[in-house]
Amino acid sequence: MTSPIPVSPYDNMTPVAQAAYRARSAAADLAPLPRSVKDDALLAIADALEVRTKEIVEANAKDVARAEEAGTSDTVVDRLTLTPERVRAIASDVRDVVALPDPVGEVVRGSTLPNGIDLRQVRVPLGVVGIIYEARPNVTVDAAALCLKSGNAVLLRGSSSAYDSNTALVRVLRDAIGGAGLPADAIQLVPGESRDSVTELMRARGLVDVLIPRGGASLIRTVVEESTVPVIETGTGNCHVYVDAQADLDTAVEILVNSKAQRPSVCNAAETLLVHQDIADAFLPRALDALAEAGVTVHGDERVVAAAAGSKATVVPATPEDWETEYLSYDIAAGVVDSLDKAVEHIRLWTSGHTEAIVTTSQQAARRFTQLVDSTTVAVNASTRFTDGGQFGFGAEIGISTQKLHARGPMGLPELTSTKYIVTGDGHVR
Amino acid sequence: MTSPIPVSPYDNMTPVAQAAYRARSAAADLAPLPRSVKDDALLAIADALEVRTKEIVEANAKDVARAEEAGTSDTVVDRLTLTPERVRAIASDVRDVVALPDPVGEVVRGSTLPNGIDLRQVRVPLGVVGIIYEARPNVTVDAAALCLKSGNAVLLRGSSSAYDSNTALVRVLRDAIGGAGLPADAIQLVPGESRDSVTELMRARGLVDVLIPRGGASLIRTVVEESTVPVIETGTGNCHVYVDAQADLDTAVEILVNSKAQRPSVCNAAETLLVHQDIADAFLPRALDALAEAGVTVHGDERVVAAAAGSKATVVPATPEDWETEYLSYDIAAGVVDSLDKAVEHIRLWTSGHTEAIVTTSQQAARRFTQLVDSTTVAVNASTRFTDGGQFGFGAEIGISTQKLHARGPMGLPELTSTKYIVTGDGHVR
Repeated sequence: MTSPIPVSPYDNMTPVAQAAYRARSAAADLAPLPRSVKDDALLAIADALEVRTKEIVEANAKDVARAEEAGTSDTVVDRLTLTPERVRAIASDVRDVVALPDPVGEVVRGSTLPNGIDLRQVRVPLGVVGIIYEARPNVTVDAAALCLKSGNAVLLRGSSSAYDSNTALVRVLRDAIGGAGLPADAIQLVPGESRDSVTELMRARGLVDVLIPRGGASLIRTVVEESTVPVIETGTGNCHVYVDAQADLDTAVEILVNSKAQRPSVCNAAETLLVHQDIADAFLPRALDALAEAGVTVHGDERVVAAAAGSKATVVPATPEDWETEYLSYDIAAGVVDSLDKAVEHIRLWTSGHTEAIVTTSQQAARRFTQLVDSTTVAVNASTRFTDGGQFGFGAEIGISTQKLHARGPMGLPELTSTKYIVTGDGHVR
Repeated sequence: MTSPIPVSPYDNMTPVAQAAYRARSAAADLAPLPRSVKDDALLAIADALEVRTKEIVEANAKDVARAEEAGTSDTVVDRLTLTPERVRAIASDVRDVVALPDPVGEVVRGSTLPNGIDLRQVRVPLGVVGIIYEARPNVTVDAAALCLKSGNAVLLRGSSSAYDSNTALVRVLRDAIGGAGLPADAIQLVPGESRDSVTELMRARGLVDVLIPRGGASLIRTVVEESTVPVIETGTGNCHVYVDAQADLDTAVEILVNSKAQRPSVCNAAETLLVHQDIADAFLPRALDALAEAGVTVHGDERVVAAAAGSKATVVPATPEDWETEYLSYDIAAGVVDSLDKAVEHIRLWTSGHTEAIVTTSQQAARRFTQLVDSTTVAVNASTRFTDGGQFGFGAEIGISTQKLHARGPMGLPELTSTKYIVTGDGHVR
């Protein structure tokens, strides 16, 4: 085009928009790259993490010192801490991503139309992916590796408590992919530590293709409500275990305790137990004992409280709030229901839509429950804890979507892609 | 659950939220229905539209009279008008939806995990779909039929200019599905004609699963910016035709004219022509003549203006705004580019991401263009006008998504679904 020279539609950009604009340009370069080039860059990242472990651990020490000074809890400090072993584990996770198939280029649909046109629907990268997270610094590398493998540029907005660690990690990642011939701007920390930079990221529609918030419920709610960039909601899990009238009691106890107590702090841990009234007398005493042994406090309805009389269990009366609470602790709400359909009704009313399990020996009950319950995952005679990208064999996970649009449940590499149609003719017109 | 009785989280609801809440309940009933039940309801709709044509046409006459009084243009009045023939055509479209496969229940992914768990990812309805539209009353029936077939409840918010028509149509649809044993609340007009009802619909997150705006650019922008309900952006099309250095001139002229002038008012019509400089001298005179013959005004850059000297074409100098304008009229922007890569650069900067076509005899050029251009559809030696659900063989179309999340390009029945995972074990725990 000789004249007029097109002006950029992105004048007067904020620093975040400028970063997004550079990411957009990097994404255009990444999109057509074959797998081998992306895998080489990922291997360069893994190597660089190992070679520059000292630099990373030293930067991390500043974050840890600040957190300790601020009186942060030991658990949170532990999550923040990077040791040489942990950096090696992160590098090893990146090598696992190398082994995963490249989703880009997959032909999702294809046919020859009646008029002779060849139609193909092909997977393409989303473009620019924004991640807002509160979690451990390993998310910085995980997210960057998954985005790179799927041909996306990534804008990382970690928590300010991990600022030094994230800065060091992103420096290492950018150097590594730059050395491998890829644009360094495919991986960027969002500039600015204030809330403003999150707001700017959420308003960068047209520059950022999707935002994935990872963290607590309030962070996710804020992003969902304020973002004009499309959002994938992740992670809130008010998961239910329903023990049907026809359940094997041993199986039911085992699944209940595993779902609740194997790791209570995660989104696929169970938060409510529902028991069919026909099996309540036989099941509840055993269930309450087993929960007590696992250190779980039960927030029970009247019938559960009555069943606890004389047991060693800690049972407190449930309030309506208990039915919607994601405890993420050694607590569980528990109630008796009159029927499977009543259990489904309760779940539909209170669930966050993550994972619900039924324990039953009845084929009809299993079929009805899986048909009627509308959550990302419905488990039959299996723990709620299986809802996980690693467990599902996806090899990696960028989060667990609890919304219905685009992706639902554990998100792997294909969920970081879109598609485009290629229409090929011989001068076809309508 | 005997006590405490769960209270609804949806107290103090607006009328729109109440409608959405009823739709949600209807959606729960629709979700597990087998195809035959849904098809019977669709046939009942088609029959009822034919039996009650008089009632529909009479209601429509009120809208038409109001529009004529208000001095509405003939084109718009024509679009609004329902004749007995048009109602029959709408009923026939519903019967076409009956013939389409049911997307619900399709197993998208499935495997047995190493631990023996059976994992299946199954298509399920989205739930409650909101459609905000300005278009003709036939959209009311089309959208309802597609949503019903895919197991979704629908909330319809048409324009107030079609209020009487839409009210009559929805009455007929509700009666028909009610008579077929389905919940009438699966199809509802959003109560209230004011802007407020649109705002309430956009804020009904948790009750409405997706909003699809269909209409002009300003409607779509409003919904995208203000909605907390996930949105699928549709329809803006600043489509490009690029004529490569190695193009067959006859093919290029035919595709250009068809893309621009076969139906200029639709989103897949071309709005910009880009010509490689090596072929400009040979192609432009022929192209300008053909465009002139089709009644098209050309907004050209310097080289196009120069090429027009002495021709019968109407050529005016292009301003920067022309490169981003979706004319939807007998106008086209046109420029000469130095290379294929410059054409791609121009397209990336200005396109709305709908459809771009290349005309070329070069395999390398076709491959590079389809790799680098990131729009819903890239056409090689075919008119931009093929980006259409009907043309793609989807049988029906709820809109053309120009976003990357969830659905991209023409949306048929599968795009009105989500998925859920079914995890089946024998007491599996982690």
